[in-house]
Amino acid sequence: MEREHINQLAIFGATGSIGQSTLEVVRRNPHAFAVRYMSGNSNADLLCAMVREFRPAAVAVSDPAAAEVVRAAVGDITEVLDGELALVELAGREDYGTMVSSLVGFAGLLPTIAAIRAGHHIALANKETLVVAGELISTLLSEHSVQLLPVDSEHSAVYQCLVGEPRERIARIILTASGGPFRGWTVEQLLHVTPQEALKHPNWSMGSKITIDSATLMNKGLEVIEARWLFDVPAERIDVLVHPQSIVHSLVEFTDGSVKAQLGMPDMKLPIQYALTWPDRGNERYTRMDLATIGSLTFEAPDTTAFPCLGLAYDALEARGTAPTVLNAANEVAVAAFLRGELPFTGIPALIDHCLQHVAHRAVRNIEDIVESDRETRAHATAHISSLSFYQSAM
Amino acid sequence: MEREHINQLAIFGATGSIGQSTLEVVRRNPHAFAVRYMSGNSNADLLCAMVREFRPAAVAVSDPAAAEVVRAAVGDITEVLDGELALVELAGREDYGTMVSSLVGFAGLLPTIAAIRAGHHIALANKETLVVAGELISTLLSEHSVQLLPVDSEHSAVYQCLVGEPRERIARIILTASGGPFRGWTVEQLLHVTPQEALKHPNWSMGSKITIDSATLMNKGLEVIEARWLFDVPAERIDVLVHPQSIVHSLVEFTDGSVKAQLGMPDMKLPIQYALTWPDRGNERYTRMDLATIGSLTFEAPDTTAFPCLGLAYDALEARGTAPTVLNAANEVAVAAFLRGELPFTGIPALIDHCLQHVAHRAVRNIEDIVESDRETRAHATAHISSLSFYQSAM
Repeated sequence: MEREHINQLAIFGATGSIGQSTLEVVRRNPHAFAVRYMSGNSNADLLCAMVREFRPAAVAVSDPAAAEVVRAAVGDITEVLDGELALVELAGREDYGTMVSSLVGFAGLLPTIAAIRAGHHIALANKETLVVAGELISTLLSEHSVQLLPVDSEHSAVYQCLVGEPRERIARIILTASGGPFRGWTVEQLLHVTPQEALKHPNWSMGSKITIDSATLMNKGLEVIEARWLFDVPAERIDVLVHPQSIVHSLVEFTDGSVKAQLGMPDMKLPIQYALTWPDRGNERYTRMDLATIGSLTFEAPDTTAFPCLGLAYDALEARGTAPTVLNAANEVAVAAFLRGELPFTGIPALIDHCLQHVAHRAVRNIEDIVESDRETRAHATAHISSLSFYQSAM
Repeated sequence: MEREHINQLAIFGATGSIGQSTLEVVRRNPHAFAVRYMSGNSNADLLCAMVREFRPAAVAVSDPAAAEVVRAAVGDITEVLDGELALVELAGREDYGTMVSSLVGFAGLLPTIAAIRAGHHIALANKETLVVAGELISTLLSEHSVQLLPVDSEHSAVYQCLVGEPRERIARIILTASGGPFRGWTVEQLLHVTPQEALKHPNWSMGSKITIDSATLMNKGLEVIEARWLFDVPAERIDVLVHPQSIVHSLVEFTDGSVKAQLGMPDMKLPIQYALTWPDRGNERYTRMDLATIGSLTFEAPDTTAFPCLGLAYDALEARGTAPTVLNAANEVAVAAFLRGELPFTGIPALIDHCLQHVAHRAVRNIEDIVESDRETRAHATAHISSLSFYQSAM
């Protein structure tokens, strides 16, 4: 056994869906994992309960008011950090083992970089980090001899299919997609989608950002970019396959025509635990798949006409530089506006396309280039939404 | 690259389906493989053509008349051995690399042992070798530091799923079965099956023995026993799952609930090439799988009432000792009798059941115990078929 010691985790985004699943994995494996640090945004009640249960040495709370509530309630048993830099400061500390990065969106980038620079292994659920800074992160990982294990079920599947295989024999990576709640819908039908409809994912219970991304297929587009950097495979050898049951989590085709797949019931605790136990596997099983009961698995090509976000992601990956940052920032702004009722569902790809064409991309020399491009895109996208003309054209 | 040198193969059963597929793999990989030795039974014309194409140093021909024809035709360019011991003699020579064992039935046992004793790696298509002598073979492999790679598509799939995985984390091996041409039939319908019907396999083009075994599900029973020894997993953790499309070749469930599968179009050249290139993979692809085109994969539990052979194999594995030898010998006699029209289809499991109950099993101390049990069972089974009363009771 390689892990007789307890891995002290830093769980970033602990109040979210992945964070809560990670804590359940910790509960089920008390001999293997403990929580040294955690972070949350504004859910003070949940943070207090988790501090009492897991007794972390410190907790970072982004929202200042929530931080005050947490400090008042559990400040006697844990250190409470707040403010914009609290996450980066906590991530950069030395006295923990693996960072579980389940922050939402661009916000995950800087803490993840701080953790890598401090030499921590990363269990990465925050796909935007690799989307906007894949090349930089790859370099950092190798400079600091740090392992980054994917927590996304698709990338975990690919990772599992690749253990023990010669990397130069990868022919294709095939990411599966449920197709979301609007699979089979026409562009006309999609015009009138409400946030309530879009938030109903058929297979996975997730946060609202990723659920909307699943409905637009942008989630799969971001995953294509993530896979490109995680596995060092060019975009033209990464395919997307719609598989509505979400049982086959992804596949790898090798140069000899053999295909390997990883399967399981949709439950994020499995890829989380795998990321934390690799290269071993845990003995805790959360769900069990029975194919005779499931009966049938179906597959179809994605509809890139009704769901243009997937193609936009391939375009941004091909353009390189800050183009994926523009894609990601425009998408974050668009999803938030859609959830507020300020943008129609089909306005999401329209806004992203507009930003890719009108916000200048440039080469990425350093992290500041990415931060600047992100900021510029958000400003452009937000201004554009405000203009009624755009809203109407998207309708 | 580990294999700059050419692997000189000894292909046993070269005129059969696996042998011919192996030669196609050699044709496609002339930089990697050559044929040092080959063996055949009685197809002199084919043997002569292959000698002229592949220029082996020697060829063993079991049938004496066929050997004469081969010697007269190509004796000037290759050594021609004949007689009962020719296969064992050839297998025991030192100057070749890997033995491809694609002999049919019990006949594969002694040459395979001779090859292991001479230190050769084995690509094993002859499942009966492990069925009757799994424990002995496992000991021999470890004594001679020899690798045995499975060529059966199911076991190759399991092997591929296990590379890089911790063996102690295997929870279950799930062998897929097409279900054969009579999937869904009742016992009453099976009474009147003809050899012509049974020889029509829905997915695989194979020799007649294995095709009948697929129709009775005995093939899957033999594979369960084979898997038990190949992967050192007890029978209660080896399941059979009917999958009519034969695209998912088998699966492994791990202790964390994760399941890995290997998929591909049904083509034996893939597992043959894998067995010869492992731990690397080849760059030659024979078929390509496209799940979006295939559309649907279905799964169901096997019908062990209509197809009792599967249960008989589990029984024999549990009884251990020579019980699997009795199972295998009775099956070989029964299949041959069925193909000659001397036994009804449902008489195959009936005869095997009878032999398992009436031929004494004993512990296996050495290979002679297996050879003796095989002989005794064949005599008993043959005598039993001759008795009209048995034939009528099976009808």
